[in-house]
Formats: sequence, C-alpha cells, structure tokens
Amino acid sequence: MAPQLDGYFKQVDGMSDHFIERLRKAVAIPSVSADDERRPDVVRMGQFLADELKALGAEVEQRPLGKQPHKEHLDLPPVVIARYGNDEKKRTILVYGHYDVQPALMEDGWATKPFDLTVDEKGRMFGRGSTDDKGPVLGWLNSIEAHQKAGIDFPVNLLMCFEGMEEYGSEGLDDFINAEAKKYFADADAVCISDNYWLGTEKPCLTYGLRGCSYYSIEISGPGQDLHSGVFGGTAQEPMTDLVRVMSSLVDTNGKILIPGLSDLVAPLTDEEKSLYGDISFTMDNLYESLGSKTGIYDDKERTLMARWRYPSLSLHGVEGAFSAPGAKTVIPAKVIGKFSIRTVPNMEPADVDKLVYKYVDGVFASLKSKNTCKVSLQHAGKWWVASPRHWNFTAAGKAVEKVWGVKPDLTREGGSIPVTLTFEQATGKNVLLLPMGSSTDAAHSINEKLDKRNYIEGIKLLGAYLHYVAEEPMKVG
Amino acid sequence: MAPQLDGYFKQVDGMSDHFIERLRKAVAIPSVSADDERRPDVVRMGQFLADELKALGAEVEQRPLGKQPHKEHLDLPPVVIARYGNDEKKRTILVYGHYDVQPALMEDGWATKPFDLTVDEKGRMFGRGSTDDKGPVLGWLNSIEAHQKAGIDFPVNLLMCFEGMEEYGSEGLDDFINAEAKKYFADADAVCISDNYWLGTEKPCLTYGLRGCSYYSIEISGPGQDLHSGVFGGTAQEPMTDLVRVMSSLVDTNGKILIPGLSDLVAPLTDEEKSLYGDISFTMDNLYESLGSKTGIYDDKERTLMARWRYPSLSLHGVEGAFSAPGAKTVIPAKVIGKFSIRTVPNMEPADVDKLVYKYVDGVFASLKSKNTCKVSLQHAGKWWVASPRHWNFTAAGKAVEKVWGVKPDLTREGGSIPVTLTFEQATGKNVLLLPMGSSTDAAHSINEKLDKRNYIEGIKLLGAYLHYVAEEPMKVG
Repeated sequence: MAPQLDGYFKQVDGMSDHFIERLRKAVAIPSVSADDERRPDVVRMGQFLADELKALGAEVEQRPLGKQPHKEHLDLPPVVIARYGNDEKKRTILVYGHYDVQPALMEDGWATKPFDLTVDEKGRMFGRGSTDDKGPVLGWLNSIEAHQKAGIDFPVNLLMCFEGMEEYGSEGLDDFINAEAKKYFADADAVCISDNYWLGTEKPCLTYGLRGCSYYSIEISGPGQDLHSGVFGGTAQEPMTDLVRVMSSLVDTNGKILIPGLSDLVAPLTDEEKSLYGDISFTMDNLYESLGSKTGIYDDKERTLMARWRYPSLSLHGVEGAFSAPGAKTVIPAKVIGKFSIRTVPNMEPADVDKLVYKYVDGVFASLKSKNTCKVSLQHAGKWWVASPRHWNFTAAGKAVEKVWGVKPDLTREGGSIPVTLTFEQATGKNVLLLPMGSSTDAAHSINEKLDKRNYIEGIKLLGAYLHYVAEEPMKVG
Repeated sequence: MAPQLDGYFKQVDGMSDHFIERLRKAVAIPSVSADDERRPDVVRMGQFLADELKALGAEVEQRPLGKQPHKEHLDLPPVVIARYGNDEKKRTILVYGHYDVQPALMEDGWATKPFDLTVDEKGRMFGRGSTDDKGPVLGWLNSIEAHQKAGIDFPVNLLMCFEGMEEYGSEGLDDFINAEAKKYFADADAVCISDNYWLGTEKPCLTYGLRGCSYYSIEISGPGQDLHSGVFGGTAQEPMTDLVRVMSSLVDTNGKILIPGLSDLVAPLTDEEKSLYGDISFTMDNLYESLGSKTGIYDDKERTLMARWRYPSLSLHGVEGAFSAPGAKTVIPAKVIGKFSIRTVPNMEPADVDKLVYKYVDGVFASLKSKNTCKVSLQHAGKWWVASPRHWNFTAAGKAVEKVWGVKPDLTREGGSIPVTLTFEQATGKNVLLLPMGSSTDAAHSINEKLDKRNYIEGIKLLGAYLHYVAEEPMKVG
C-alpha cells in the first residue's frame, strides 16, 4: 500500500537543508498582523508564498479582503489561494494555514533574534512563526516539490487557502470562505488544517474536537464619574463592590460553574468515549510542566483531559475601568466591566448558554439590592466543533502517522477554539481534520517559539503520506 | 475688637484687580509636579513666590530637598520658606501651602486654556491651580501687601512653608518639617493650612478632622505564567477566581465592612458630637450633585456626613495583573493583585487595623482550600487626624469667618487625608487649623478648575482677619 512513499521519504530527507532554508526565508519576513507598521511585511510574506507556489507550477491568486474594520486606512493582507493539480480522477483536498505571525521583540526576552531562524545542537529551530504556522504551511509546498524531484505523481488535487490575519482575528476570512465554498473550493472532498500541536512531545495526534467560547461582559455603573474614596467612601454604593460579588458567584476555586442549568446542556459521557482517555499519552507531570505549578484541579489524567476537552469551564479574565496599574490609587471607579468566558462543549447551544447566564447574573445582582445599574452582555460566541474521527479523512491521517512515526496517533480534542475549523466544515459540508506538525513545547505565541527539525522534516513526510492514504481510501465512507 | 479690620478690608477691595493679576501671573506658570518635563516650571514658580515675598520685605529661603526618589536625574523643587515679622511680643503663625499643580491639558476637556486665568461674567476665575493652591498661597502675600498699603501693623509674625511637590506625594517634605520643627519653625504658636474646601458653596467652614487611609494589596498567584483559558480552563485553579472571592468578603453593597473586630476600634459617638451634625449646611441634593447619581447609601444628611467623616469605609480600587483593556482577551492571569483601602478614624491604630485585615483575609483564603498562594500586605498607611475645635486657633478663625462672611462657620471634618496636617501637628506639637478659601464646586484636580472671585477677595480678608483675631486670643487657652 502506497509504495511510492519510501521514495518520497528519501527525497524529503535529501532535501531537508533546502526545506530549512525555505523556512529561514519565511521566518525572516516579520509578518506581524497585529502591528499596523508591519502590514507591508505581511503583504510581502503573502507574495513570497505566491511566488514559491507559482514556481512549483500551482495556479495562484491573491484575493483582496478589503479594508481592515475600524482601521479604514489599512488594507487587509490578501488571502493566497492556490490549486495544484486538476485531475477529475483524483480526490481534492483543501488545506488551510496562515502566513502571519504573533509579535516578537528581543526585549520580550528572546534568547535569539526572533526573525533569524536559529538552529541549536538539539535541532530546535527557533524563530517567530517557525511552528505557528510557517513551518506547516511550507510543509505543503515542500511536499509538492519533493514529489516533483522524486518523479512521483502527486496523489491528489491540492487546494490551498493561506491567510494573513489569523493572529488578529482572521478579519474578513469567514465571509471569503462562505463566498468561495461553492466556487473556488467547490470540489474539495475534505479539509485538512495543520495549525495546532501534539498533546506532548513524543506522540503525534489527530484532533477531532474543539471547545467553543462565549465571552461575556458584566457592566456595573453608578456615580456620574470616578470618585475619591476619601470623600465618598462610606456614602456611595460602589460599582466595584457589586461587581466582585457578582463575579464571585460564577465559579468556585475548583472550577465548578455555579450557574444553574448549565451542566444539563452538556452531552453525557458515554462508556465508549470514556474508554478513549485511558490510552492517551499524557501525564500529570505534563500538566504541571505546562502550568509551571502544581495548582491543577484534578489529580488524575482522565479527569484533567475531560475537563480540558469535553466539559465546559468558566474563567474570570479581568476588570475594565478599575485601577489596574502598579501602585496605590484611591479611586472609586464609576463604571466597571467584569470580563468572563465560558468554554462550551457539545451540546451547549450558545443561545441557551446566554439565557442561563443572563438570568443568573441578573438574579445575583438583584439580590444585592443595589442602586447601581448592572448590564450583562455577550461580547462574542464561537461554537464548539466535533468531527467524526471515523471518517476516511481521519483514517488516512492515522495510517500516515503510523507509517511516518511508527505509532498510532492519539485522538485528541482541544480546549481552545480555532474558529476557522467550524467555518470550513459549515461552508463546505466536508469533514475537517486537524493534523498537527509541532509539539507541545513549541511555545507558539510565546518567546523562543521553535519547531524541532525532526517535527518539520517528518511533518513534511506526514503531510505527503496523508495525501497518499487519502487517495487510497474507499470513496463512499464517512 | 480688631478695629483695624475695616481699613484692611477696604484696602483689599481697592487692590482686588492687583491681586487677581498676581493670581494670573501665578496660574500662567504651569508648575505641574507630576510631569518631569515641567520641572523647570515648578522651580520657576517657586522663584516667583520667593521674589514676590522678598519684594514684600519677607526673609526668604529656598531649601533643596535633594533628588527625586526613583528618578535620580531629577532634583525635587525647593521648599520656599519665609518669615515676615520677628517681634517677640507677637504670636507667630506658621502657614502652609503648595505652589505645584495637577496636570491640565486642553484635550482633557477644558473650556478655556488651563494656564490662562479666565474670568467669566459670574466672577468665576478658571485656571489650573486657581483654587488648589495658588489662590490661597497668594492670599497670605496679598494680606501682607494690603496691610502695608493701608498702613496697618501686621498683627503676627508669619512663618511660611510653601512646597512644590504636593500633587506628587509631597516627596521629601515630612523629613524637612521634622528637621525644621525645632529650628526654622521653632517659635510657631499654631499652624494654619488653607488647602481644602467648603462643604458647599455658601457657608464657610473650619475643618478639624481628617480620616486616615490604610491601603492594602492582596496578591494571589499560582501558575508560572499567564495561561490560555481554552487550554487550561477547567484544569487549573485560577488566581482571579480566588481573588474575587476574597475581595467580595470584605464589604457589602451598603458599605458595611465585614472584617470582624474593626468596628470595635471606632470611638463611640457621643451625644455632644452627634448634636453637631444637625446644623451643618449640607443636603442630600449636595451629595447627589457631587455623585452625579442617586446611588448614595443613606437617605439622610446626618448619617451621610458621619459615614464620610467619623466612620471607617472600605473601597475596592481594582485589580493589577488581570485583563483590564477594552475588548475580549481569553487569558487566565497567573498573578493578580487586588487593591483596597480602609479609611480610618479615631481610635483606630493602623497596626491594629493591619492585624485584623491580615487575619481575616488569610482566613477567607484558607476557607477556599485553594492550591494558589495568597499574600496580603499593607502598601501604605496615613493616620487620621482630629484637632480640638475649641483651641484659640479655631476660636480666632471662627470670629474671622463671622466678621467677613456674617455667619458662624460649620465645623467640619473631611473624609480624605491631607497627610501634611498630621506631620505639622506631630512635629511642632501645636494646634493645626484647616481654613479653606474655595468652595465645593471649585473642581480641584478636575477640568475647569476655578476659584470664585468672591472667595478669593473675601478669602484674603479672612486670612488677614484670622491673624488679627489670633493676636487677640488669650495666651494660655488650648
């Protein structure tokens, strides 16, 4: 089965220096989407990708997304879309990635220059965007090139969608995907996204679920302006006093959500699902290492993973409008806005969650008998996503992992959201697979982001192998 | 009694334009102590005062206070100290004021240029520092000049202490006052400070008490770094969850402090003290106007004033380390610091308050059974101050108010602290009187700060009259 793979793998190994050079060139372009000043670099990065793809023989377009909302002087960077292969007899796979990166400054504490790819003796390739998401994006290009050089027929038609605003809310992308679902993306048979990470450092995984997120504000106001606590302390009802009372009623130290009815919305745990957790390669020490402390809620792996993946959680993020700087200021804030979010899971409908939240917060505030005013509102909601890991898209990826890494992958979910996943699923109606390249220690979004050379090179093999197994899967399953 | 006053008053009226010009010159110097760039203007303002005082025949010194703490490149502005008169047969009165001002920018919303004194048709003189505290400081100089011009003997020896860092924590002043108490200030018989305001707009007051302030931090930490709520929500004990629980246990919506034992430290209300409140010129509408809302705790004047002046209060100021910007960020903060302060009153010893606070916060946190770490600490404490309003210093000021304004002054306290008051009392061992010039609507520290022309001119008369009555008071009272 898939006998061409050995030749392909050999070719990838032989070209590894070339592929690392390609990553070095990409990392050198500081395509920071959150920084207006860097917008030309983001555009330059999109152009770099388009040029590389054209050189490989792909059809490429750079589609404009209009002006950036609230920054009308600023054009959004284009979406780079491309097609490689147009053979009706082959399956067509749509892959997504992003070519923008998080901000990075030496002053933040980087050990090396963030936009100079620096490989250490352990094969760790440090650089902003190395793992998130330039390495995986180039993985697809490298796979095409290795096939060409090895003289192996590319097994599928590849549709590519690479955006330049992922780290800044994917502005404009949802509309674009919805508009192109039945046009440019019309013949996609399945979707693959490589933009997340292994659960640990040794065992690959396939990801089939993400939690959603409903983000709320509780605004409590009273006085016409901020007050001096010397003059007004003891005579005015203080919004901050009310806010901490309301916020403290939402969740307890052990993460138990105190909003009645919310847990009734959660899909019950089946025996079959429960049985999946025991085998997953994860230890409490993995948790403690990533927490940087032993302040976890549960002492066992199963409950910890379920709490992360398949149960809701509620986090209090902060307070807007109160004194937040170092030092001492004796202000009574006139208006304070508490921020919290609920990570949602099947089968919590966001609208049902909203209703329970509003009713509960209003009730708690009413019980305070305060003369202040309380408004609770939703800032945004992103729905959870769960795919079927029995779909041929996952079966193919599982075989590819076994071929490349010699182990069956863990089937994982993630606690956070990757909203584009659900958008692709809903817009195309096709199965979406998350196929990570990097590991849990890659420090995406942090200082010293890296991608291990091993994960990059084996990852290129993995993406190619996945496409070969996809081509072999029975057509009518899933 | 004090027959010279009519001549003095007439002289003040005749020189009113000249006195307003002097205030205009002072306001024109933007002596913003909080702004490092403005430090030369602060120094220039001190020089202006010194020059004016010298021209009036006073002995003047500008005393350096060394470098500004934490800003070693910056000299603190000098304290301007002066003596006018050195007659052993006369009483010696030490007066304090400050020549620096709060920041002020047109962009903040000023209706007129903040450093151009602008007089409107109602006689309101708008300008930064007009009422806080350049008007009152110049009041003393104007009083000297009017006596000279009217040919009336100045009734006391006047010692003056004018600082340039009041709006930035009076850096270095306490040490200076303590060092000079038995030297430059050695022969002071009493102290008078004109740096606060009437309770309303029509009735003058003498102020004999201030609340203290003990400011606390509650630091709760757990994870090694900020966490993503998608990844860790539900698996980690969150410091912010614990913090709002602890903060919500401190005080309720109606301002009741929930720390056991604290109310036992408060001096009981005597019938005599209680009887003072009924006569004070203050209405609930005054409160609602200054609050900008009707969100007061009490519905009656007496309880409102007592809550402001003679009972402790606890305000929650904010949280450091949590998400505080507009928008939505899904962070789990690793370390959060809640800030609150307690306004203290007789007979609360700050050390006793600390003990009760620490014990209670530690107990509440322990009850959460959290794996996080909680540290509660004092940021700073300033003690309350109460003087005897029966001292001759107050009796003289009361007579002056009656003479100038035709009414007996309200005897007031204030909810906020003016730390230098207690410093002068403790360093000199003499009675300290707060004798305000401006009214409650002067908007010190806000945009459109003003001093009414009436309050300025009658205030100059008041300060002079006070000194005449001081000279006549029996020597051995108080």
